[in-house]
Amino acid sequence: MHTAGDVRVEDRDDPEIIEPTDAVIRLTATCVCGSDLWPYRGIEPADHTLMGHEYVGVVEEVGSEVRTVKAGDFVVGSFVISDNTCEICRSGYQSGCVHRAFVAGTIGTQAEKARIPYADGTLVATPGQPDEDLIPSLLAASDVLGTGWYGAVAAEAGPGKTVAVVGDGAVGLMAVLAAKQLGAERIIAMSRHPERQKLARYYGATDIIEERGDAGVAKIKELTGGLGAHSVVEAVGTRESTMQAIGATRPGGHMGFVGVNYDVHIPGFELFLAGIHMEGGPAPVRRFLPELIQLIWDRKIDPGKVFDLELPLEQAAEAYKAMDERRAIKALLRP
Amino acid sequence: MHTAGDVRVEDRDDPEIIEPTDAVIRLTATCVCGSDLWPYRGIEPADHTLMGHEYVGVVEEVGSEVRTVKAGDFVVGSFVISDNTCEICRSGYQSGCVHRAFVAGTIGTQAEKARIPYADGTLVATPGQPDEDLIPSLLAASDVLGTGWYGAVAAEAGPGKTVAVVGDGAVGLMAVLAAKQLGAERIIAMSRHPERQKLARYYGATDIIEERGDAGVAKIKELTGGLGAHSVVEAVGTRESTMQAIGATRPGGHMGFVGVNYDVHIPGFELFLAGIHMEGGPAPVRRFLPELIQLIWDRKIDPGKVFDLELPLEQAAEAYKAMDERRAIKALLRP
Repeated sequence: MHTAGDVRVEDRDDPEIIEPTDAVIRLTATCVCGSDLWPYRGIEPADHTLMGHEYVGVVEEVGSEVRTVKAGDFVVGSFVISDNTCEICRSGYQSGCVHRAFVAGTIGTQAEKARIPYADGTLVATPGQPDEDLIPSLLAASDVLGTGWYGAVAAEAGPGKTVAVVGDGAVGLMAVLAAKQLGAERIIAMSRHPERQKLARYYGATDIIEERGDAGVAKIKELTGGLGAHSVVEAVGTRESTMQAIGATRPGGHMGFVGVNYDVHIPGFELFLAGIHMEGGPAPVRRFLPELIQLIWDRKIDPGKVFDLELPLEQAAEAYKAMDERRAIKALLRP
Repeated sequence: MHTAGDVRVEDRDDPEIIEPTDAVIRLTATCVCGSDLWPYRGIEPADHTLMGHEYVGVVEEVGSEVRTVKAGDFVVGSFVISDNTCEICRSGYQSGCVHRAFVAGTIGTQAEKARIPYADGTLVATPGQPDEDLIPSLLAASDVLGTGWYGAVAAEAGPGKTVAVVGDGAVGLMAVLAAKQLGAERIIAMSRHPERQKLARYYGATDIIEERGDAGVAKIKELTGGLGAHSVVEAVGTRESTMQAIGATRPGGHMGFVGVNYDVHIPGFELFLAGIHMEGGPAPVRRFLPELIQLIWDRKIDPGKVFDLELPLEQAAEAYKAMDERRAIKALLRP
């Protein structure tokens, strides 16, 4: 991305193994993330930035210390590099790894090939070469599924719980899927787009709320005996959506926030009076990858449906445009 | 409090039973809270406000529906009125009760007598009439101990954990006591006042950090192998202390915030990148009261040491002044 709104596909040198813990992969598929729209819209800076952080592909070469993946393996990787051995990783927070690095901006997986540092700690091999129709779902695991899943886990979605999801983008839809898989009793999706409402229902939403802001909060309270939801996932990242999520969570309830809230300031005293749990940040996708890959492999979940546009990598600019204009939920790119 | 800085002791009508769930108590002791200093200093509005929300005393009369306390009982009450029967109360979040009301401003327990609504849900009777020397400790349970305890529980203090406490006021000191009781391995108190450092060590602090802000965060990282503390309690409520607490918590760690953060705006993106758990708000003291009363009764904890000034109620104005000028940690008032 040369600058906001200006995405170009250009030739770069092929990546090579630098560290013995590196792997070089050839990408089978990649995609555009909702968070890529922040720099696209000029909210985050962009200056010849390497874009893309979601990826699946085939390992071409590994460094001498890599043990868990080898050339020829089909792999899914997290959008955050992690060693998966440090104390933070072992506690399940790989996105806070002492060696953490964000793929976005540093590697850029909207590309044909990529060098992945700490391959053992970042990549997970699938049980075999996947069927073609599983590719979108495996790609989703790399971020949107992993992120939505984390949002639902952070919100403590589970049996007997009412879960509300703020945001009907790919991550929000994946949080609906996760809440369903985690056994939630009732899943409220907040959406005013008919197509996305349909997909939310497909993934397990039991109720749809079209209202936003205070009206949306009031509606959730109405549906929950005046108390608010046990679990709320914030999957947008604006001030309005954040306050909506805080307001919709009952006292003592859990709010998971996974929307990139680039410029949001949370009024501490309102949060204080709400008396809720909050957990969020870049999702520790690596924690969930083995489980998510297996669920996809066994065809128990099909997160790949969030991709409603597929283009060759060369047309990346159009993919950004379609998502920016909300013509597409999420665009898959084929290198 | 007529207005900021102007505290007066004036005659009011004796309280009477209004609702069948009320109790009227005669206060044995009450005190001034750190949060009372917000209106005193003009940060919160004050206009002939009824002050005081911490209290112990003897029940004089109960309404017809009160079952768990009776005339003559010595009781400790929470600073938040709760029915202790609604779904929120039963989940342990009595400070978010559907009938919640704050004692501060509405009842005002810096007084000789008080009407306590929802007596069954708000008050807990002690096992008998307490020895005189237990009064300060029982009074502490009403708020500062219960609040510090909640901060430590919210921060998930426990065996094997390093707990950092931001704030050396009464609540911070009580969080140190709580972390110790909850079995924390290492307890870091952030304080630059020799007297408070001494008390923090008495209550179980293993380390003292005098630095504040970024320097304080750096020091905590230095003491924790670069990772940050597992558990951090924020017990001040300023922007600086809040950011210090967020920064001192390791990724995936827990921050309990109990300082009244009246005018703090938390930068969402910094919180996002920190990747931590946050829980806080007005403490559900009622959840902890039975346990805390027993610990005090059995002389296993002595939270009453935080009161380093005792005055007759008539001298309330001097009590405020002493705390405002930091000449006293916490002032006990005898009606």
